[in-house]
Amino acid sequence: MSRGFTLWFTGLSGAGKTTIGEIVEQTIRERGNKVEMLDGDVVRTHLSKGLGFSREDRDTNILRIGWVCEVLTRNDVVAIATAISPYRQAREQVRANIPAFVEVYIATSLEECARRDVKGLYKKAISGEIPSFTGVSDPYEPPASAEIVVQTEGRTPEESAGDIVSWLEAHGYLTPAPKAAPEPAPVAVAVPVSSAPSSSSAYSEEEEAEVSKRLEDLGYM
Amino acid sequence: MSRGFTLWFTGLSGAGKTTIGEIVEQTIRERGNKVEMLDGDVVRTHLSKGLGFSREDRDTNILRIGWVCEVLTRNDVVAIATAISPYRQAREQVRANIPAFVEVYIATSLEECARRDVKGLYKKAISGEIPSFTGVSDPYEPPASAEIVVQTEGRTPEESAGDIVSWLEAHGYLTPAPKAAPEPAPVAVAVPVSSAPSSSSAYSEEEEAEVSKRLEDLGYM
Repeated sequence: MSRGFTLWFTGLSGAGKTTIGEIVEQTIRERGNKVEMLDGDVVRTHLSKGLGFSREDRDTNILRIGWVCEVLTRNDVVAIATAISPYRQAREQVRANIPAFVEVYIATSLEECARRDVKGLYKKAISGEIPSFTGVSDPYEPPASAEIVVQTEGRTPEESAGDIVSWLEAHGYLTPAPKAAPEPAPVAVAVPVSSAPSSSSAYSEEEEAEVSKRLEDLGYM
Repeated sequence: MSRGFTLWFTGLSGAGKTTIGEIVEQTIRERGNKVEMLDGDVVRTHLSKGLGFSREDRDTNILRIGWVCEVLTRNDVVAIATAISPYRQAREQVRANIPAFVEVYIATSLEECARRDVKGLYKKAISGEIPSFTGVSDPYEPPASAEIVVQTEGRTPEESAGDIVSWLEAHGYLTPAPKAAPEPAPVAVAVPVSSAPSSSSAYSEEEEAEVSKRLEDLGYM
């Protein structure tokens, strides 16, 4: 059994954190480790009910998730956090408390997240229906030196998860799968993060223009 | 290594939860188990900053601690919670989520807690300086069917902790200490929960009378 560590995903809403995180979680478990995933949405229910989306509340939420990761990690559990965690300072505070901390930046661009718009949130955020939406009306500060940077565009979640697992193996966090007993061939189905084909768009041309303008105004494009 | 379980202490402020809990924690660790103590005061900092002492906030605090206990327990960590947890319903809600749940009622009477008054809180609570203080101006609902009931009056914390450990051994939660290699003789120092001798009182006669009256008014005596 490996020692505990924290795998801290960060990235925009819809970047693929949960989807990729779940695949990595499954692999880590299959290798005989204890693993617990703290997903942003789940944690909002159990840990942070009542907190809003101000900077202060977002930071409190992140530090709280970080504290649970710390407790799990020191008890030899692998903790996977998949919250947006938009502010660099809060992430660095969490990092400072956890010796075995691996930051994973899911670097899907805002343009791509808004194009996929898996939960329809970007549309609502851009129309102003959702205030303080990360990337649209609230800041996102990308990591300056994440251990792992994952490019998801044009790649399947399985491929992205595979990159993370390889990094963990190469850096001694995870024991490679035994080669003596070959595993069953992986199912060769590519599950896209969004069901919408990435070449087309769910938005009309007019909406596209509006998205682009907002992103430009925010300095993202 | 034992499986995880949750040891849920409940009792008044100053009953001895933390003191006894720490001794039990140490014993469980010495037996080769992973163990994490979630103390009421520590948890208020990391998990529940911003919550007050209304019934709703107290319940939220308890459910949140309970959720962390649940996560730890299912990862084979022994979780020890030592918050007051005054409301029966919230405790029962936590119990319902954790298959291996052991409730420990530290049954120190209000009269004795107020007499010890380790942190000087009862004096402040009775004078009205602290509002919503459990047992004085806020309810405490003792468990109807705790797995373990600990009487602390006239006994050392080591004796009380010993009772809990014996129960855990007898019920298969904890492997008894190996007999082949005898442990070093326990240090025979009785550490009282309060430094004040239990026969005397930190209060003047007048204050004593006031304490008694308040306790009577609240239906505790």
